[in-house]
Amino acid sequence: MKNLRISFVFIVLFSILSSQTAAQTPEKIVPKWNCDLLITGGTVVTMDKDRRIIEDGAVTITGGKIGLVGKRAAVTKNLKAKKTIDAAGKVIIPGLINTHTHIPMSLFRGIADDLDLQEWLTKYIFPAEGKNVTEDFVRVGTRLGLAEMIRGGTTTYCDMYYFEDAIADETSKAGMRGVLGETILDFPVPDNKTWAEAIAYTEKFVKKWQSNPLITPAVAPHAPYTVSEEHLKEAKGLSDRLNAPLVMHLAEAQTETDFVMENKGMRSIEYIEKIGVLSDKLIAAHVIQANEKELEMLKKHNVGIAHNPQSNMKLAAGVAPVPSMLAKDLRVGLGTDGAASNNDLNLWEEMDTAAKLHKVFSGDPKVVSAEQAFAMATIGGARALHMEDKIGSIENGKFADLIIVDFDDLHQTPYFNFYSHLVYATKAHNVRDVIINGRIVMRDRALLTLNESVIKKDANAYRTKIINSLSSP
Amino acid sequence: MKNLRISFVFIVLFSILSSQTAAQTPEKIVPKWNCDLLITGGTVVTMDKDRRIIEDGAVTITGGKIGLVGKRAAVTKNLKAKKTIDAAGKVIIPGLINTHTHIPMSLFRGIADDLDLQEWLTKYIFPAEGKNVTEDFVRVGTRLGLAEMIRGGTTTYCDMYYFEDAIADETSKAGMRGVLGETILDFPVPDNKTWAEAIAYTEKFVKKWQSNPLITPAVAPHAPYTVSEEHLKEAKGLSDRLNAPLVMHLAEAQTETDFVMENKGMRSIEYIEKIGVLSDKLIAAHVIQANEKELEMLKKHNVGIAHNPQSNMKLAAGVAPVPSMLAKDLRVGLGTDGAASNNDLNLWEEMDTAAKLHKVFSGDPKVVSAEQAFAMATIGGARALHMEDKIGSIENGKFADLIIVDFDDLHQTPYFNFYSHLVYATKAHNVRDVIINGRIVMRDRALLTLNESVIKKDANAYRTKIINSLSSP
Repeated sequence: MKNLRISFVFIVLFSILSSQTAAQTPEKIVPKWNCDLLITGGTVVTMDKDRRIIEDGAVTITGGKIGLVGKRAAVTKNLKAKKTIDAAGKVIIPGLINTHTHIPMSLFRGIADDLDLQEWLTKYIFPAEGKNVTEDFVRVGTRLGLAEMIRGGTTTYCDMYYFEDAIADETSKAGMRGVLGETILDFPVPDNKTWAEAIAYTEKFVKKWQSNPLITPAVAPHAPYTVSEEHLKEAKGLSDRLNAPLVMHLAEAQTETDFVMENKGMRSIEYIEKIGVLSDKLIAAHVIQANEKELEMLKKHNVGIAHNPQSNMKLAAGVAPVPSMLAKDLRVGLGTDGAASNNDLNLWEEMDTAAKLHKVFSGDPKVVSAEQAFAMATIGGARALHMEDKIGSIENGKFADLIIVDFDDLHQTPYFNFYSHLVYATKAHNVRDVIINGRIVMRDRALLTLNESVIKKDANAYRTKIINSLSSP
Repeated sequence: MKNLRISFVFIVLFSILSSQTAAQTPEKIVPKWNCDLLITGGTVVTMDKDRRIIEDGAVTITGGKIGLVGKRAAVTKNLKAKKTIDAAGKVIIPGLINTHTHIPMSLFRGIADDLDLQEWLTKYIFPAEGKNVTEDFVRVGTRLGLAEMIRGGTTTYCDMYYFEDAIADETSKAGMRGVLGETILDFPVPDNKTWAEAIAYTEKFVKKWQSNPLITPAVAPHAPYTVSEEHLKEAKGLSDRLNAPLVMHLAEAQTETDFVMENKGMRSIEYIEKIGVLSDKLIAAHVIQANEKELEMLKKHNVGIAHNPQSNMKLAAGVAPVPSMLAKDLRVGLGTDGAASNNDLNLWEEMDTAAKLHKVFSGDPKVVSAEQAFAMATIGGARALHMEDKIGSIENGKFADLIIVDFDDLHQTPYFNFYSHLVYATKAHNVRDVIINGRIVMRDRALLTLNESVIKKDANAYRTKIINSLSSP
């Protein structure tokens, strides 16, 4: 009863504030609401501030944005929807946000495993990249990664790679949302051979994509150990001047801490703060080597953090202090890292792993609850990307990025708690429909903006090339 | 060429040793081999001693056992198969072995999470069991768990619960293989109110099922902290007398170690050895609180070990010393534990988690390789159950427990290494066909021995009952 009353007040309020049109005819005094898309039935897990969970709910979408969110009966009263998706028995949740990827590296999935980070990078990844990464490789790898992510319900991702302009083009065509950082570092890489070229490419790239509704172009200096102090400052300056996010690996491994200590006499995060690179535009990946004082620095500067539990485990990089980050209310989201070090782009497994890893690592089974893990993959990810006013929850006025998930597969039967089931029992293949910016990009598990069989064919052609390139001297 | 020659020699050798019939007619001098089922094409990951991986392979099955294993061309030459399954483009692997479950607890999936083991057990699990567990509950929960496990390619499981006779009945009817232990402890439980009753039930249960081709009935004293010394010895005596496995939780948590230390003046494994309960019939679940000396004890007595990484993480029980166990060549397999503490029965996630957890916990990315993790879920699990001569690999003469797995899903594209892809990229839903004891129990993802919609309906009826029981005083 109380819920219905709240919904009614909400609808009345909405009629005053909303940009939606109320059609009224002389014959009918009751107003008719219009919307582009109605999702009806099912349970809406909003992830709004009150963490409302609305059973038998409904959501309207108009002009790519979320309109009404409430009980089905209240929302659908006098509603005229151009298109309706029935979600009865399903769960409607915010699209998942992958805060750290190297999307074209999907083509390197499993080329080398069970190795030290340095050995893995220098003996396998760098040579494989040197011999194979072209703009075409990046496009094929991006389409593969996009298809895998959309299948698993990811609606926004934050990337760092080369030829990021091609990644933006593929991402935009697929209808996916991305914070896409052109990776720049002090040595020659596949797309740019000098720092000056890399900076010029990045500026042009950012300006080209900045007005695109789906793409947030970014500047991505690789890491404190691969980019000089002068160049880090220059990258930060570019980010400020263009008002673009700055994406960077930070405090990832003991070797990095040692390197910075030896060269700068302090730890990574301290160093990055001292040179003025910590800012509310920074999205820092990993943040494993961080003590309480450094976490306070990240908090003070509103830095976003991408936590990548599975990649960090597989490379034995360490365990990020996530319980402390959550206790301090830092902006922390989840990421998969590249498929070469994970070996997939599956945020459901990251949620499950994050919740379990921090319990065993801290010895406290109460830390990183299912709700907190789910929050990291949704509204927390949005905060990490400094986009919490636009995405990450199902709320009026936000971009319509949301997914519909089956909830009655065998491994989900029976259910008692939504967050627990989303984090500990639901799998990527339980995602049925994906909507990004109001556009349906997957319906009944069929990708609508990407051609799966062509993607696989193209990827397998690269497989052969990669194998040949690695066996040649 | 060399492979073909080996295969040819194998076939000749086989014609002498095999029990298969060679049909010969006056018209045809070439012998015709018969088999019940031929699986042809695809890559056979045998997990035999040489870890043979046979691309474009084939496997024959006759009388519930594996016959020929080799290259397709060699195996199928002059072969007459009653039934053929085309596995081209797929991977054929040994059925997975889940070494630790409480299968009916699938009905408690997610009733309580993110809690201390003691709080979880005493405030939620024990009351929920006391109010709900009947023989019918056990049957419904078992069918639910069997369906989930078969869907994910599990062909053998080792269980501990109450009403284990009903579990054996459901398992046998579903065509699943099980080592099924009736759980006995010092306080009243749903099926037996006294120790004497429990022992009598167990003896009757073991004798009833011992000749069943799928069921290995077992004696399952719960744990060193819930069963007295006298009763542990009695259970061991019963196991010896009936020649039945002994299944037990062992060295699971610090609280157990403290309890045994306080009462017996030594640690759990030392105590269990001292009272003569360590044996080559024992299957010990968890084994987290184990030092090098204790691991040597387990080795000396040929104890089987069920490692449950996800459950141990979720309950913050600790991390079992698996790299040491593997270095000592202990009999260690993987388990999910009950779905109430995991929250699923998915061995693919256990493999992935095992490989990653031990890397980050030891700081060494080379420990628990993909091949070792895959071995733990197959031949290692067979060794943990003391059944390595019967199951766990695809070899002539073993029971025909094998599964066919898709290898071209988006998250598996491209592939470079079979073990890496099986452990780090493949998911439970990629299992296409499941064969147990030569019988096809899942074909093209359709369960043939269990009715999925009825199972879900029955489970959801219990959901309502459980919720009502927990809200009543």
